[in-house]
Amino acid sequence: MAQVRNKQVILSNYVTGFPKESDFNVVESTISLELPEGSNNVLIKNLYLSCDPYMRGAMTKPEGSERKGSPTYVPASPIAGYGVAKVIESGHSNYKKGDLVWGFTTWEEYSLVPAAQLVTKIENSDVPLSYYTGILGMPGMTAYAGFFELSSPKEGETVFVSAASGAVGQLVGQFAKLTGCYVVGSAGTKEKVDLLKNKFGYDEAFNYKEEPDLDAALKRYFPQGIDIYFENVGGKTLDAVLSNLKVHARIPVCGMISQYNLTEQEGVKNLSKLIYNRVRLQGFIVTDYYHLYPKYLEFLLPKIKEGKVVYVEDIAEGIENGPAALVGIFSGRNVGKQVVAVAHE
Amino acid sequence: MAQVRNKQVILSNYVTGFPKESDFNVVESTISLELPEGSNNVLIKNLYLSCDPYMRGAMTKPEGSERKGSPTYVPASPIAGYGVAKVIESGHSNYKKGDLVWGFTTWEEYSLVPAAQLVTKIENSDVPLSYYTGILGMPGMTAYAGFFELSSPKEGETVFVSAASGAVGQLVGQFAKLTGCYVVGSAGTKEKVDLLKNKFGYDEAFNYKEEPDLDAALKRYFPQGIDIYFENVGGKTLDAVLSNLKVHARIPVCGMISQYNLTEQEGVKNLSKLIYNRVRLQGFIVTDYYHLYPKYLEFLLPKIKEGKVVYVEDIAEGIENGPAALVGIFSGRNVGKQVVAVAHE
Repeated sequence: MAQVRNKQVILSNYVTGFPKESDFNVVESTISLELPEGSNNVLIKNLYLSCDPYMRGAMTKPEGSERKGSPTYVPASPIAGYGVAKVIESGHSNYKKGDLVWGFTTWEEYSLVPAAQLVTKIENSDVPLSYYTGILGMPGMTAYAGFFELSSPKEGETVFVSAASGAVGQLVGQFAKLTGCYVVGSAGTKEKVDLLKNKFGYDEAFNYKEEPDLDAALKRYFPQGIDIYFENVGGKTLDAVLSNLKVHARIPVCGMISQYNLTEQEGVKNLSKLIYNRVRLQGFIVTDYYHLYPKYLEFLLPKIKEGKVVYVEDIAEGIENGPAALVGIFSGRNVGKQVVAVAHE
Repeated sequence: MAQVRNKQVILSNYVTGFPKESDFNVVESTISLELPEGSNNVLIKNLYLSCDPYMRGAMTKPEGSERKGSPTYVPASPIAGYGVAKVIESGHSNYKKGDLVWGFTTWEEYSLVPAAQLVTKIENSDVPLSYYTGILGMPGMTAYAGFFELSSPKEGETVFVSAASGAVGQLVGQFAKLTGCYVVGSAGTKEKVDLLKNKFGYDEAFNYKEEPDLDAALKRYFPQGIDIYFENVGGKTLDAVLSNLKVHARIPVCGMISQYNLTEQEGVKNLSKLIYNRVRLQGFIVTDYYHLYPKYLEFLLPKIKEGKVVYVEDIAEGIENGPAALVGIFSGRNVGKQVVAVAHE
């Protein structure tokens, strides 16, 4: 069988603290582009790989039963994540050669994956294919499920979003505006704050790095308090939010990126504020909501085509640049959804 | 108009840290036992006063809009809380002379209260009247709403209750057993731990003061994790629970008594555990559930009469002993529901 080159991104060591480029290696392996006899797996060519905050958890050495439900990388093996791919050969009836798909794949040029790892075929190709790592993929469904399913937003409510220009945040803000909410976002650079106000339609936005007193900043933007806080960062931001909630506020907990690289987590002190305000703080995992994907496409595709919802991506070209792109999201280097383009078709 | 003596419990100063007996004074005032002309209020003789953890919040000097929804005491004025009383005269059609009632009253022998402060007339007097400060009053409804309405318990689930022998906790444990759950409680003395196991039917119980490692204690009692944590204490206990939850766990947040007397709240570090386990942490206030009170009585009264649900009270005799009784609940001096008997009929 003919073997072809298969570049891979390998975890060199378990990571502690902030991940560095040197925690990864790009190596050359080989792969056969024929399906093994009798296999019901799918052989795919990876086109776009998604850099997502949850991947930080997979880089940490697992301890006991601690990391239920989340993937774990193995040193000296390639890392994994969401991606867009083209089917080269398929042993499974759901997929055929030439199909475009998105789902869970490996960081390499070609992968042999179980069909169950693929979320779905891509039926609409009149939008950028890379969108299926973001607005039309896992982060998009995360924003949709977290905002509409967990928060039950109503017109006129007040919404705060942290990491607001990120893969998920930029959509939450736009969904909030479509619902008739007042929405404020926080981000870590002036460029991102400008995007929030001028591109995504946030009513207000601020650079949290320039706010010595987050509580005061929230009181400025939400004098009457917050109805919905879409939680992406945790730590000090959550603590400040807890002192600025309205009665019956909802906090869908999507992620806590500010905590992922700390060896000792920050303590959150204002949890007793949940009581009198009858607040619901709820963690969620997007995979529980994938049955809503067709409904999501029906809601969103027309809005993308009419320009009513926009999406900003930060695309790194070439799998060689994958480690830098992945590491960059933990220091906020990316502007918008971070993608790695392995190939364009 | 004839005036009678009316002993009152007065707040001497706003409280910081743990409340002390000297933060209160018992003084003699006078009151007329006739309703003012044209009043639609209700004149009541207070029989039993309830000592509840939420009262600590009312002793703190209010800051801005911080204490929405909770009462605030005023120095040099009598404090207030739940109680059982007998109607002396009524200007309101819902109540008449001789009725027994429970509701929100003032810490004094006689009170003139708006009818809206009273929750309801007492129709069943074949149980101890003091029960209407506890099992048949606000704490009982708190246990019922927090456990059944917010936690949606199922047979076979695992339940952990902190402050488990308290006014609310002793009922949550018994409700969990009636539902077919496995239930473990924590308390602060050997006497209370014995009560949990031998009187309230908890499957297991431990003294948290004798557990240097709460995480290890929970792993011992819940090797498969916790489905429902009934949160009464906050702080370190909550942090340990967060590392021992099952997927889709529910945490109704009833109170955080371990934090009420601290000038600096303890930080809770394990909140990111909410995410992968899809945990719902939800604050609630019992007054939102008072419409369920008739349903609660229907559920509970037969069980009390058949001895299937029991209740332990700690009754201090005389309003003069009110301050000591109230202060005592914050150091765990009481065993079971703390009540102050002002008069018995």
